[in-house]
Amino acid sequence: MFTIDRAFVATSHGLGELGLCHARLQDDARFPWIVLIPRIERVRELEDLGPGERSLLMDEVLAAGRAVRAVGKALGRPAPKLNVGQLGNITPQLHLHVIARRPEDAAWPGPVWGFGKTQPYGPAELSAALAAARKSLDF
Amino acid sequence: MFTIDRAFVATSHGLGELGLCHARLQDDARFPWIVLIPRIERVRELEDLGPGERSLLMDEVLAAGRAVRAVGKALGRPAPKLNVGQLGNITPQLHLHVIARRPEDAAWPGPVWGFGKTQPYGPAELSAALAAARKSLDF
Repeated sequence: MFTIDRAFVATSHGLGELGLCHARLQDDARFPWIVLIPRIERVRELEDLGPGERSLLMDEVLAAGRAVRAVGKALGRPAPKLNVGQLGNITPQLHLHVIARRPEDAAWPGPVWGFGKTQPYGPAELSAALAAARKSLDF
Repeated sequence: MFTIDRAFVATSHGLGELGLCHARLQDDARFPWIVLIPRIERVRELEDLGPGERSLLMDEVLAAGRAVRAVGKALGRPAPKLNVGQLGNITPQLHLHVIARRPEDAAWPGPVWGFGKTQPYGPAELSAALAAARKSLDF
């Protein structure tokens, strides 16, 4: 049975289900950031997915890219750049990060992972970010 | 005409040509690390590639994963984990990083990008790393 690692639940908000992945908005107001978790048991690396699953995943990375851009725009911080990462050094369950980046953001031009201290969204911004992400993803 | 940003040439060694990407070994003995650069003009994001190109790219990320594992093994530092990243905040030409990671490496469990100081390979290790990567990639 597929279950999501508790680490994701503690740090992000569920957005909805794509064809392959469960999508979550990272609760960090510094960066528009979606985490995609393929709904497949016990996978840790891209190579653990089948070819059809990898193709779906690529499509969903692109969709998540559009969604994080929509979040940035909704928050008045449009982002010209996307960053995509598959690390899993801390939480091994396969997941991909899709993040909208801008030269004015706190970590630019470095990576966001492990950078500084998470800044959880305030209620109004969280609501706007979730709405923008869900609308972009057709949820 | 497709040309490679000089930033890559300064920091890595050409391995050969895959179906879509030019592959390079990052000159950093701390991490087995391949950079894949799609041989397409003026692309900056995954969304700038066509569907067939994205599919090829995914295949080549997997091949690069096997190759960085082979490099780690050849250097006596087999790596249980892979990290994949598409950032481009500093060098905008589209490129993907594929890195073999191990709990004993310098940056673990953080990301390698921007971490500490690059440690260029010595001649014998570089030669072994290039040979292992090229063999794995069928060059």
